[in-house]
Amino acid sequence: MNVNGKHYRTIWIKENNLSTVQVIDQQKLPHAFDILELRSVEDFRAAIKNMTIRGAGLIGATAGYGMYIAALTSPHKGFLSFIETAANILIETRPTASNLAWAVKRQLLAVRSCSNREEAIKITLQTARDIVDEDADFCRRIGEHGKALIMEIAKKKQGETVHILTHCNAGWLAFVDYGSATAPIYAAFDAGVRLHVWVDETRPRNQGANLTAWELGQHGVAHDLIPDNAGGHLMQHGKVDLVITGADRVTRNGDVANKIGTYLKAVAAKDNQVPFYVALPSSTFDFGRSDGVNTIPIEERDADEVRFITGKTADGRIETVQLCPDSTPARNWGFDVTPARLITKLICERGLCEASEKGILGLYPEKLT
Amino acid sequence: MNVNGKHYRTIWIKENNLSTVQVIDQQKLPHAFDILELRSVEDFRAAIKNMTIRGAGLIGATAGYGMYIAALTSPHKGFLSFIETAANILIETRPTASNLAWAVKRQLLAVRSCSNREEAIKITLQTARDIVDEDADFCRRIGEHGKALIMEIAKKKQGETVHILTHCNAGWLAFVDYGSATAPIYAAFDAGVRLHVWVDETRPRNQGANLTAWELGQHGVAHDLIPDNAGGHLMQHGKVDLVITGADRVTRNGDVANKIGTYLKAVAAKDNQVPFYVALPSSTFDFGRSDGVNTIPIEERDADEVRFITGKTADGRIETVQLCPDSTPARNWGFDVTPARLITKLICERGLCEASEKGILGLYPEKLT
Repeated sequence: MNVNGKHYRTIWIKENNLSTVQVIDQQKLPHAFDILELRSVEDFRAAIKNMTIRGAGLIGATAGYGMYIAALTSPHKGFLSFIETAANILIETRPTASNLAWAVKRQLLAVRSCSNREEAIKITLQTARDIVDEDADFCRRIGEHGKALIMEIAKKKQGETVHILTHCNAGWLAFVDYGSATAPIYAAFDAGVRLHVWVDETRPRNQGANLTAWELGQHGVAHDLIPDNAGGHLMQHGKVDLVITGADRVTRNGDVANKIGTYLKAVAAKDNQVPFYVALPSSTFDFGRSDGVNTIPIEERDADEVRFITGKTADGRIETVQLCPDSTPARNWGFDVTPARLITKLICERGLCEASEKGILGLYPEKLT
Repeated sequence: MNVNGKHYRTIWIKENNLSTVQVIDQQKLPHAFDILELRSVEDFRAAIKNMTIRGAGLIGATAGYGMYIAALTSPHKGFLSFIETAANILIETRPTASNLAWAVKRQLLAVRSCSNREEAIKITLQTARDIVDEDADFCRRIGEHGKALIMEIAKKKQGETVHILTHCNAGWLAFVDYGSATAPIYAAFDAGVRLHVWVDETRPRNQGANLTAWELGQHGVAHDLIPDNAGGHLMQHGKVDLVITGADRVTRNGDVANKIGTYLKAVAAKDNQVPFYVALPSSTFDFGRSDGVNTIPIEERDADEVRFITGKTADGRIETVQLCPDSTPARNWGFDVTPARLITKLICERGLCEASEKGILGLYPEKLT
């Protein structure tokens, strides 16, 4: 995607410097566009933990590069145990994100075949590059499949604007490029479909207001920011043609862990017969798990993310303000699980499928075992 | 209710000064407790419009006093037309609030029987006082009926903590005293029931974070502030025993207009078999209307209420910050409508009833005509 006319991915190796990974600092968006450099396992741990980088695909891609940097900074003797320790450190940063463990395990598998550090460096670099390239390619394909879906709705509406609601940021900032939920939107927009996006601000970290609104604005897609409370009202009044969200983890039977609040939109969509789609690359599947509601670990984050918020003052300073009385306690779960029964279809890189074991394994028969 | 140990209502006539009405400035809460003075129809219009005072009952009580101040500031000649103009000004401030029109019409009915200004002043003062006393009394009674309900649940839970979720502020700050949704909570708490309240922060104006959390804290009721997105997750995991919200307007058939986002909680409660109660004094009914979803006018407010937020900085200043890119447009509907089918029971001053025409007219048979 382009930022001020220049093409960016969300993560890349620094030019002429193989020991530095660069990422867009998403904590600074939308008020500043800064590039951050990551050079140690600790840099990667902190960047994932504090959400400098976030989003299903990008967490995986960053973990992939983190494992490469682990290899690069490992000692000659004991390189493998150093890398394995790094793997544990990275995996523990975000318990709900499926892509994180997926990328780390993929790197571990690769690195365990290596007999020395140099080999490990080479293979982890290649694997990290494969992960990001695959991520971008998978998101591009999700866009193509989703575009067809939006064009069908546009056709039914005879050219009237198609209204799409999305929650959180499953945009290109959440992946390496294109995004998952946004990929169909960008693809349809680029194909000339008249569309408009309702952007849930997505409390408490406001990834909708900070990131999705910024992305859509950069790309020129018509949109309106709304409080998370507004979506049900819009659906009741026929102002949402479809919902598309991303996912942080999807079980074998199609239950979807995604940003807290997704379930509320899904249950309202069902109540109003609004189709509810979840877009994801296959790296987000957790094929080893069914019953998402009762078994997916849900990250609980710092209560101060609810009690405080950061924004831009009238004179351009970045300021954090407290939103409740001094003594008010708060709780902050990062995700909820939307049961498969509320999901119209999943949009994957191989196409659309029902949110069910049968549907998912129909697309990914190699996971039948 | 008490604030720092002193008893307050939310609105009253200034001591020894019949031409000044005093209210708690709710825009300043929770970071400051200020009293504001209202002396002209314009003061009242602005206070209601900009939400210095807000909440179903308090809007009605304020409109009642506003009509008294209209009489007091009217000319001897043409006092009636002056008061009628004031009535229109007040009614137009908040289109969704039912108590507003109810209070203004009650005053108009009283004032139209008057043959001169002095009589009008006297009768509007008495009527305004009746409205606030009735409001407080009705809320107290709602508390008693709701307390029985909570005690029943506490009994079933054998003394385990009862978890109640509420949205927005239907607390004593939204009325003259006690509140509607909070009245049962305060009554049960005072009776020694172990309970805990999940406080939806209630974007975009954060009445939950600013007002409900403050009220509950002042009264010593255990609570946690949560993002509006969290309630569905809590319900899925058995962490909500019941939901109680207030209402801004309830139709003859039991559809409930309340703060935007209420519908999302109601539909999630239904999906999880969590009982969903709406507490209201009868002044909130709109007996002339059925089909709330399609006919209740929904106020759209300034988009900047979504784009900006005000809070307290680390050094104690009150600061407003921007939450999205400079060019991001936003939309801001103040209310949504929860269909009667999602509501377990209404809690009114006369008792509990089904959210249906039959149920409501069973409690208020005088409205059968």
